[in-house]
Amino acid sequence: MPTVAFLGLGAIGRPMAARLAAAADVDLTVWNRTAARARDFAAAHRARHAASPADAARGADVVITCLPVSADVEALLDGPDGLIAGFSRGAILVDCTSGDPATSRRIAARLADVGVGFLDAPVSGGTIGAEQGTLTVMVGGHADLLERVRPVIGAFGKKIVHCGGVGTGDALKSVNNALLAVHVWSTAEGLAALERAGVRADVALDVINASSGRSNASMNLFPERVLGRAFPRTFRLALLDKDVGIAAGVAREWKVATPLLQLTAELFRMAHVALGEEADHVEAVKLVEQWAGVEIGGTRG
Amino acid sequence: MPTVAFLGLGAIGRPMAARLAAAADVDLTVWNRTAARARDFAAAHRARHAASPADAARGADVVITCLPVSADVEALLDGPDGLIAGFSRGAILVDCTSGDPATSRRIAARLADVGVGFLDAPVSGGTIGAEQGTLTVMVGGHADLLERVRPVIGAFGKKIVHCGGVGTGDALKSVNNALLAVHVWSTAEGLAALERAGVRADVALDVINASSGRSNASMNLFPERVLGRAFPRTFRLALLDKDVGIAAGVAREWKVATPLLQLTAELFRMAHVALGEEADHVEAVKLVEQWAGVEIGGTRG
Amino acid sequence: MPTVAFLGLGAIGRPMAARLAAAADVDLTVWNRTAARARDFAAAHRARHAASPADAARGADVVITCLPVSADVEALLDGPDGLIAGFSRGAILVDCTSGDPATSRRIAARLADVGVGFLDAPVSGGTIGAEQGTLTVMVGGHADLLERVRPVIGAFGKKIVHCGGVGTGDALKSVNNALLAVHVWSTAEGLAALERAGVRADVALDVINASSGRSNASMNLFPERVLGRAFPRTFRLALLDKDVGIAAGVAREWKVATPLLQLTAELFRMAHVALGEEADHVEAVKLVEQWAGVEIGGTRG
Amino acid sequence: MPTVAFLGLGAIGRPMAARLAAAADVDLTVWNRTAARARDFAAAHRARHAASPADAARGADVVITCLPVSADVEALLDGPDGLIAGFSRGAILVDCTSGDPATSRRIAARLADVGVGFLDAPVSGGTIGAEQGTLTVMVGGHADLLERVRPVIGAFGKKIVHCGGVGTGDALKSVNNALLAVHVWSTAEGLAALERAGVRADVALDVINASSGRSNASMNLFPERVLGRAFPRTFRLALLDKDVGIAAGVAREWKVATPLLQLTAELFRMAHVALGEEADHVEAVKLVEQWAGVEIGGTRG
Repeated sequence: MPTVAFLGLGAIGRPMAARLAAAADVDLTVWNRTAARARDFAAAHRARHAASPADAARGADVVITCLPVSADVEALLDGPDGLIAGFSRGAILVDCTSGDPATSRRIAARLADVGVGFLDAPVSGGTIGAEQGTLTVMVGGHADLLERVRPVIGAFGKKIVHCGGVGTGDALKSVNNALLAVHVWSTAEGLAALERAGVRADVALDVINASSGRSNASMNLFPERVLGRAFPRTFRLALLDKDVGIAAGVAREWKVATPLLQLTAELFRMAHVALGEEADHVEAVKLVEQWAGVEIGGTRG
Repeated sequence: MPTVAFLGLGAIGRPMAARLAAAADVDLTVWNRTAARARDFAAAHRARHAASPADAARGADVVITCLPVSADVEALLDGPDGLIAGFSRGAILVDCTSGDPATSRRIAARLADVGVGFLDAPVSGGTIGAEQGTLTVMVGGHADLLERVRPVIGAFGKKIVHCGGVGTGDALKSVNNALLAVHVWSTAEGLAALERAGVRADVALDVINASSGRSNASMNLFPERVLGRAFPRTFRLALLDKDVGIAAGVAREWKVATPLLQLTAELFRMAHVALGEEADHVEAVKLVEQWAGVEIGGTRG
Repeated sequence: MPTVAFLGLGAIGRPMAARLAAAADVDLTVWNRTAARARDFAAAHRARHAASPADAARGADVVITCLPVSADVEALLDGPDGLIAGFSRGAILVDCTSGDPATSRRIAARLADVGVGFLDAPVSGGTIGAEQGTLTVMVGGHADLLERVRPVIGAFGKKIVHCGGVGTGDALKSVNNALLAVHVWSTAEGLAALERAGVRADVALDVINASSGRSNASMNLFPERVLGRAFPRTFRLALLDKDVGIAAGVAREWKVATPLLQLTAELFRMAHVALGEEADHVEAVKLVEQWAGVEIGGTRG
Repeated sequence: MPTVAFLGLGAIGRPMAARLAAAADVDLTVWNRTAARARDFAAAHRARHAASPADAARGADVVITCLPVSADVEALLDGPDGLIAGFSRGAILVDCTSGDPATSRRIAARLADVGVGFLDAPVSGGTIGAEQGTLTVMVGGHADLLERVRPVIGAFGKKIVHCGGVGTGDALKSVNNALLAVHVWSTAEGLAALERAGVRADVALDVINASSGRSNASMNLFPERVLGRAFPRTFRLALLDKDVGIAAGVAREWKVATPLLQLTAELFRMAHVALGEEADHVEAVKLVEQWAGVEIGGTRG
C-alpha cells in the first residue's frame, strides 16, 4: 500500500486527490498553500493533512504536485519546510502541473542529486475527467519510474502515455493547448468576418461542423458558449496564455519555425492584458469581436 | 421536369452531374471545356452534350457551373457562344464553384440585367460526398430562387443551407477551408516542434485526438496521410491557397482584423510556390518540415 | 497658359492649389465639397470657384483631384454635375489622391472612353512640402501624358517620378507608407520591450539612431513626438491604415508573399479601431504601450 | 597602466584588440581558440599570447571577450584552464559579445561569487568602426564598473552608453539588430511587390529614400547590395537570426506583445535554414524574392 502525498488542491487537483483518497490501497496525505482547504479535504476524505511540503514528503513513496506553474513547484523544493527536506531516497515526484520543460529539467536535476525520481505528468480532461478518473496523463521521464507510479496515477488517469524524457509531457500538453488556442482564435476570426459579411454564426457553425474546417473548438465551445453568450470559468485565459507561451518556447528552443504558434502566443498575450486574470479562455473571442465591431451570433433572428 | 445544364465535369463536377443524370425527373445537358470529357459523360449517362455554353443554356431552367475559380465562370458569360447568349429570361445560374464573393456579385448583376437569377452554391464533402449525394451546399442569393432550385440541387446535396445574399455561400465556403488550412498548418507546426523535442508524432496525435486540441485535420488527415507518408491528391494545394486568399479578402473587405487568417494566407502562398501546382493540400506540411529539419512521424520506432 | 481645375482643398490639397494659384502662367478654378472652403480660397487667391465638378472640368486642360480615397474620385465622375459631363476631349485628370491601383485603373478606363487621359499622381512631403513646392510626385500612366502636365505639377512637385503604367504611382505611395507603418510599429515594440527590461527609451533611441536599426521613424518621429508625448495631427492613422491596406492588396493581387506587410495591415486596423478616426498615425504606438503595460519614455528621470 | 586580456580575435574582435595594442598605456595579452591566430596577432602587435583563458586572466585588471554567442563565453569560465581559475578578485570581465541577457545574468552571478565584476558591452559599427575606434558600446551592469573600464574600452569605442543593469546592453543591441532585420525584410517585401506590379526597384528606392518610408536598410544596404547583386559577407545571417531571437526572447521574458518582432524572428529562422550558415544577412532578401518569383532590381533597363 503506497504512501502518497498530494500538494495543490485547486480546481483540478482536488478531484484528483479525491480519486486517490477513494482508492482502497492508498495512504493519502494532502497539503495546500491555503491550509483550510487541505484541512477540509482531509476531514471529508479521511486523509492526513500535512503541515508543510516537507511534512507531506516525509515517508511518502510518491509525491504528486498540481500547481498553476512550474515555478510554483520549484519554489516548494527548498528550505526547512521544503520537499527536499522531507523526501526519502527512492521517492518519486510526479508533477501534474501544466509545466514548462526547462523548469522541469531543472527540478529533475535537483532531485536526482538527492536520489529522488521525477516525472512531469500534466493532465487533460478537465474537472469532469478528474472526478470520473478519466484524465489523459502525459508523462515525461524514465519509463521505469512511470511503471512504478502507474498504479497510483491510474486512480485519476485512464489514458496514461509515456512521451519521452523529462519535459516531454509538458511539451505535449503545451502543444495540445496551443492548438486549442489556435482553433478558438481562428474560428472567432472566421465567424466575425462572416457575421460582418452577412452570414449568421449559427448557420456558419452548422456548416463548418459538417465540413472540413471543424475542430473541438467549433463543435463544442462555440455552440455552447459563444452563441449562448455564456462563458463559464472552466479554464482561465491567463493559464492558456501561459501554455501557448510554453509551446512557443519549446519551438524556439528547438529552432523550429512556427509562425502560427508564435503569432497565437502574441494574440493570447494581448487578450490576457485586455480581459484580465479572471477571464475564461473562451472569452478571448471578445477581443476578436471588439476589433471586428461585431458580436458573434449577434445577428441571430 | 426541369431542364438542367451542367458545365464543368472536373473531379467534383462529374459525380455531381452523374447524380443529376440518374435523377428520374431531370433532363440533363452537359458541357466541358475539353469536349471529349463531355461527350464521354453524355454517352455514359444518356445526357445531351452541348457544343457551347450558349448551347447548354438554351432552353435550360437551371444552369449549374462547377469550375476552378469564379473568373472561369465570368469568362463563360459573354460572346456569341457565351451563357448570356443562350439564357432564357427566368432561368437561374447556380454556381457551385468555390468562388469569391466580389466576382459572384458582378456575375449576379450582369445576369439580373438579362432577367436571369444567380445563386453562389459552393459545396463541401469531396468526391465521395458528390458520388453519394451527401454534399453540403452553401447557398448565397435570394431565398425564393433557392426554393425553386432546391429539388435540382437535392440530387447531389443533402445539407442545403441558405447563408444570405449573393456571395455569402462563397464567403462561408472560403472560411471553412481557411480553418482547414489553419488546422493543417498549426498541427504540423506543433508536431514538428514536438518531434524535435523528442515526442513521436503518433504518440502526440494519440493524445491530442483525445484532448482539446483536436480538429478534423488532426483526427483524419494527419494519422492517415502524414504519418503514413501518403499524400493522395484529393484537393490541390493551389486551390486551398486560393480559398484561404478568398477568406482573407472577405475579412479585408469587411475591415475585420484577422491576423491568423491573413498569416495563414501568406503561408499557403509560400507552400504553393514551394510545392507547385499539382501538390495536394496536405503536402503543405512538407514546408513546415523543411523549415524544422524534421519529418513528422520520422522518428517512429 | 493652361487652364487648370483643382478639386479637394484639404490639408494637402489647399497648399498645392495655392502654389498653382501663385504660378504666373496658370488659370485656376477650384472646387470643394464644402463650398465655403472653395469660395474662401478663390477669394484669397484670385481663382475662380466652380459650382460643381462638371463646372470645374468645363474648359480645363488639366483637372487635379486630391481626395481622401480613390472611391471619392470615382464618385465625382458621373451624373449631370460629374467630371465626365464637363470634360473636353483631350483633357487630363491628374489624381493626387493616395489612391488604390484597382480603382485608378477603373477610372482610367472610364475616362479613356470619353477621350480623357488619366494619371495617378500621389504625393509625399506633407503640408510643408506642399507649401514650399517640394513634394515628391509618383506618377503612373503614359509617359507622354506626364510630359504634358509636368509644367503644371511642377508648381507643387520638385521630384516628379514616372513609375510605370496606371496605378503604379498609387502602388509606390502605398508601399512607402506601409514601410513607414512597419517602422513606427516595430520601433514601438522594441522600445516598449526595452523599457520593461530597464532601458530608457531616450537612451535606446540615442544608440539605435547611431546604429543599423535606425529609420526615418526612429530618427524623427520618436524623439519629437513619442518621447515628448506630443502627437500633432499631421497625418491621420485612419489614412495610414488605408494606405497599408492598399499596399497589402497590391501584394495579394500580384501573389507576392508578404507576411510582414500583411501583419502590419492587421495591426494598423486594430489601432484604427482602438484609437478612432481622429488619431494621428504616430499614436499607433499607444496600442503597443497598452499591450506592454508601459509608456515609452515613461521611466525617464 | 592597466593590464588587459582580449579573448576572441574574430572579424570584429581583431581590430578592437589592435586598437588596444596601439594604445600607449595598455599592457595587452590575447587569446583565441585557434591559437595560431593569437600567436600571429601577438607577433604583429607586440602583445603577449596566452596559452589558455586562465593564463590570459591571470593578473589582468580587465578581461574583454568578443565571441559569437553568450554560451561561448559561459563555456570559458570553468575548469583548470577557465577564466575563473585565473581571475584575481577585483578584476572585471567586459563581454563585447552580442549576447543574451539571461546568460549574461548567469555569468555575472558566477563571477560575483569570486569577486569579479561583469559588464555586458556589445558593440555596433562593424569592422570599419572597430578599426577606426568609433564603435558604439552598449553597457549593462554597475555604473561604477563602467567608469573603471571606460579608459580601456575608449580605445575602440567612441559612443559609450550605460543602458542599465546586467543584460541591458545585450537587450539594446538585440533590439537594434531586430529593427535592422525588420527593415531589411519589409523593404524586400515592398520592393518585390512593386517589381511585380511594374515599378522598378531603383525608381522605388529613389522615391522611398526621399520619403517617410526610408531606413538605414533602404538608404544604404539596398542600393549598394541588392540592386548591385553584390552580397559581401559583412555580417552573417546566422548571427542576425540569433540576434532577432534574443530580442524576441527579451520581449517574451517581459511579457510584451510584439507581433512584428516575433514574426520577424520566424522569417529569419526560415531564411537561415534556406540560405545556410555562411550567407550574409542581406541575402535574406533572396527568400522574399523566391516566394515572389522575382528578382528585386531584375527589371532594370
